[in-house]
Amino acid sequence: MIIRSARSEDEPAIWAIMEPVIRAGETYTLDRNMSEKDALAYWCGADKNTYVAEADNVIVGTYYLRPNQAGGGRHVCNCGFMTSAEATGRGIARLMCEHALKQAHDQGYRAMQFNFVVSVNERAVRLWQSLGFEIVGRLPSAFEHPTEGYVDALVMFRQFQNS
Amino acid sequence: MIIRSARSEDEPAIWAIMEPVIRAGETYTLDRNMSEKDALAYWCGADKNTYVAEADNVIVGTYYLRPNQAGGGRHVCNCGFMTSAEATGRGIARLMCEHALKQAHDQGYRAMQFNFVVSVNERAVRLWQSLGFEIVGRLPSAFEHPTEGYVDALVMFRQFQNS
Repeated sequence: MIIRSARSEDEPAIWAIMEPVIRAGETYTLDRNMSEKDALAYWCGADKNTYVAEADNVIVGTYYLRPNQAGGGRHVCNCGFMTSAEATGRGIARLMCEHALKQAHDQGYRAMQFNFVVSVNERAVRLWQSLGFEIVGRLPSAFEHPTEGYVDALVMFRQFQNS
Repeated sequence: MIIRSARSEDEPAIWAIMEPVIRAGETYTLDRNMSEKDALAYWCGADKNTYVAEADNVIVGTYYLRPNQAGGGRHVCNCGFMTSAEATGRGIARLMCEHALKQAHDQGYRAMQFNFVVSVNERAVRLWQSLGFEIVGRLPSAFEHPTEGYVDALVMFRQFQNS
C-alpha cells in the first residue's frame, strides 16, 4: 500500500469513501445530507493537505492534515481519517495515522489533536490510544448518535517527542 | 446598555474592537496580521449570529453565536466575545455571555462550548466558571503566548438545564 498526496482526479474515489460515512452520521459531525461538492470542498479544501491510501491501484482510504487553529495555535495539527467500507479491518487507518504523524512532525507541528471522537466509536478510541493519543477532554452529550442518542465526545491529543 | 443583532453599518465599530485583540495575539487563535476584511468575514460570517453591546450609542462589545459542529453535533453552540479596550472591567463580557446563554437556550441549543480558552487568561476562565462553565478538557501547550511561551488551552462547557 502506498500513501500519497491526493490529486484532483482522485475526487470521485474520495467521495465514494466519504458518502457512506457521512450518510451514516455515526462518526463525523457533518450534515448527513451533505452534497458531494460540499464534502469534497471540506475534505480537499485549500486549508488542508489531503492524502489517499492506495492498494493495487484502488483508493482504500483518505485523510487530511491541517493546522487545528490559526495564530498562537497553529503548531498543533488536526486530521480526519476515512477508510472505504470494503477495506475496513485491514489496518489502513493505523497506517494512515502513522503516515500523518510523520508528515506532521516533518512539517514542524508539535502535536496532533482530534477535536471530536465519538465516545461510542470504541474501535477508533482504542486505535488512537494505541498510537499514543491521550483523552484530554470529554464533551458531555455533545454528539447525537443516530441510534444511541446523546453520547459524549472525546478530545484526544498527542504531543510529539523532540518538539 | 442594550445588546442587539449587529448590522452591516456596525462593522467599523466591530473592527475597532477586534483589531487590538487580534494584534495582541494573547487570547484568540487568529493570525495576528489578519486583515479587517478577513476578520469581519470571520466574526460576522453567514454561519454566525453576531451581536453588539451598545452603551450611550457607543458599541462597547461584540459576540457571535454559532453551532459548534454540524450534523450530530449541532445542538451544542459556540461563542466568541470581545470587549472594547476602553470599556473593560465594566462587566460587559458577563452581560454578553448571559445574553448569549439565553439566546442559545431560546434557539434550542442544549449546551455551549468554548473550544480554546487560553489558560493564562485567568480573568476569562474565572468569568466563565462563574457563569456555570466547567473545564472539560486541557490541551497541553496548545497555545503559543506572545510573552509567556507555550501554555495550555482549556475546553469549557456548560450544559443547559431543561435540555
